[in-house]
Amino acid sequence: MSALNLVSKKIDEIATPTLDTETNPRVGVVETNYFHFASPPHEITLESGEKFGPVTVAYETYGKLNDQRSNAILILHALSGDAHAAGFHKGDEPGWWDDMIGPGKAFDTNKYFVICSNVLGGCKGTTGPSSLNPETGRKYGLDFPIVSILDMVNVQKHLIDHLKIDQLLSVAGGSMGGMQALEWLVSYPDRLKSAIVIATAAKHSPQQIAFHEVGRQAIMADPHWKEGHYYGGPSPARGLAVARMVGHITYMSEVSMAEKFGRRLSQNGKSRKFSIDFEVEEYLHNRGDHFVKRFDANSYLYITKAIDSFDVSRGKELYGVFKGIKAKVLVLGFKSDWLYPASQSKEIVKACKLAGVDTTYCEIDSTYGHDAFLLEVEEETHLVRHFLQKASSARGGVHGDEVRDYAI
Amino acid sequence: MSALNLVSKKIDEIATPTLDTETNPRVGVVETNYFHFASPPHEITLESGEKFGPVTVAYETYGKLNDQRSNAILILHALSGDAHAAGFHKGDEPGWWDDMIGPGKAFDTNKYFVICSNVLGGCKGTTGPSSLNPETGRKYGLDFPIVSILDMVNVQKHLIDHLKIDQLLSVAGGSMGGMQALEWLVSYPDRLKSAIVIATAAKHSPQQIAFHEVGRQAIMADPHWKEGHYYGGPSPARGLAVARMVGHITYMSEVSMAEKFGRRLSQNGKSRKFSIDFEVEEYLHNRGDHFVKRFDANSYLYITKAIDSFDVSRGKELYGVFKGIKAKVLVLGFKSDWLYPASQSKEIVKACKLAGVDTTYCEIDSTYGHDAFLLEVEEETHLVRHFLQKASSARGGVHGDEVRDYAI
Repeated sequence: MSALNLVSKKIDEIATPTLDTETNPRVGVVETNYFHFASPPHEITLESGEKFGPVTVAYETYGKLNDQRSNAILILHALSGDAHAAGFHKGDEPGWWDDMIGPGKAFDTNKYFVICSNVLGGCKGTTGPSSLNPETGRKYGLDFPIVSILDMVNVQKHLIDHLKIDQLLSVAGGSMGGMQALEWLVSYPDRLKSAIVIATAAKHSPQQIAFHEVGRQAIMADPHWKEGHYYGGPSPARGLAVARMVGHITYMSEVSMAEKFGRRLSQNGKSRKFSIDFEVEEYLHNRGDHFVKRFDANSYLYITKAIDSFDVSRGKELYGVFKGIKAKVLVLGFKSDWLYPASQSKEIVKACKLAGVDTTYCEIDSTYGHDAFLLEVEEETHLVRHFLQKASSARGGVHGDEVRDYAI
Repeated sequence: MSALNLVSKKIDEIATPTLDTETNPRVGVVETNYFHFASPPHEITLESGEKFGPVTVAYETYGKLNDQRSNAILILHALSGDAHAAGFHKGDEPGWWDDMIGPGKAFDTNKYFVICSNVLGGCKGTTGPSSLNPETGRKYGLDFPIVSILDMVNVQKHLIDHLKIDQLLSVAGGSMGGMQALEWLVSYPDRLKSAIVIATAAKHSPQQIAFHEVGRQAIMADPHWKEGHYYGGPSPARGLAVARMVGHITYMSEVSMAEKFGRRLSQNGKSRKFSIDFEVEEYLHNRGDHFVKRFDANSYLYITKAIDSFDVSRGKELYGVFKGIKAKVLVLGFKSDWLYPASQSKEIVKACKLAGVDTTYCEIDSTYGHDAFLLEVEEETHLVRHFLQKASSARGGVHGDEVRDYAI
């Protein structure tokens, strides 16, 4: 059943008579598709040099590809995201960026054909450590190879080839999604007209690596982890929950935490020593508990390692590496984001400028910290919509005077 | 054997003929003393209302108490500190603040009688969860009562009474030590002439609580923790190591991490997947491994909980609570300290000013993050020496014009 059919079905069910974007600005019910690398040798060469295959890619699409096949936008997800970016699966929550993708929204599905796929190494349908290894008949676990951000992008490129799209109108993502966007810009400059790079870095700083390493250590210290071969038995849920708690602290700002929780005591009662006292503790526990139900601990290890190892310049001068970029670039940073501080966005922008890339930068004055890239919908919508309109009308190449800098 | 005898002995051993402060500015070999609350009812009333005893306090002293008993300074340690602040135990490392305490140093042992004791709930000689519970004949574990910063201070006050010191010349500490200094100021205004409050907060913010909670969760997720009754068996070392790693990230600044490690790869070799790749990871592992050898996991739970629960104002207006303070106050903050940001020091200073307290504030321009309070010896020495001289010469009461603000 196609996504379109499902949309119609859902509309019947809820007795919504029209798809009018004013009253129903939603993608509707969607389903995930799976692309199996079909052509021999059924494998890809990883950045490490290792060959790996077969690969399945989970992806979703929203909107309609036009006859010129020129209106496709690839959405790139962050650490814990998946292919389900918009709309909803039956009875399930909306996609992770549903606020931004849909009829009349920033990524307007009345105009654009929006694609989102789960990354290589993930656990939401694309091949990862929790997939079955056909050679052994058991799940990969740590037999899964180390993958990089470029490997994720190469798998996405296979998908785009499969969809017969020569050039993407845009690629867009925040956090790890922004790293993939940078890799797309550098590795496939002819395959995209624009890129939207949000709340990210050209490479991970030691502090960013350190936070991830603590999370990995928490997972690997869990006796249920069993060197990664826990499938079929209990999972290292407590370790993964601790890793996610560390993550959530870094995703919020001090201000947003203070506004959300203050020092209010949890209403959960004090059943025993070192149980939950403060609301902020309760929040972290809930986020941790929620996460372990939907995410695989080994994928957490592989994906955080890919992020930590990421350096789009490969140790060279960043502006030199950016010299081949032909696409327009929109970079967004957030004032209170201390995990990926605006200074790292500015570093990207400066290198783009030095390399002569048509770049727009905007620093959004948000108190949400790193979470802002998922929450500052109104600001982002305004900027993305404008940027995509310009990118759509441009006939390739750089048009430096068409976009302006909002701040730098 | 007294500390003085030990000093002499060490001097003989190393054939140093004089205690000249230019050539030998060290306290020398010291030993830890133990004070057992001797007078009935052998117990204290905790802030929670619970009675607890018996209590032993581990403490060290450096320098000599003068005849007027007016030159005593109480040093207050941070989360993982102990009574061994200066000098060295035979064959061991120097005390944790040896750079600041000794002949001719900031806390000049030629002039002052310096005392440092291990906190209640600790694991370095003062009664804590790893002490023997005389009622059960086994170690307390979680049978140890919840303690607060005020409880720690009350135990210190018992020690000061025991040493027959009516009024301390000063109390001084950084981080949790600063919280104890604030509690001394508010709870025993007549018992001190001055206080040095470094890199701390009047209460913990939700972000600060959150970092501690992640550490506690890591410990309690370790199957060796066994609800706190692990003594005699393996300790929850991996959980405690993860907790300490989280701590160390928050103690350093982004800049100091970048300067110290950059993205340099560890020379440890890549023996297996998700082993150490970057130097920053190696550093965290080493700190974690080192810590579990010297610290008790239950003490980590109790002490972090005391810090998180700390609010010197008990929910009231801070300046109102500070109105009874009679001592001079020196507050120090560090620019790159993001765990206890200078804004929290300024909050203390502003409340002091509103309350009419004679307060000096200095924000030190360091890149070391929270660790700066242990590392910025030169700046701190200059400020502390000057402040103590003024406090020594003052005849009690407030002398607003004697000290100046360095910055606010």
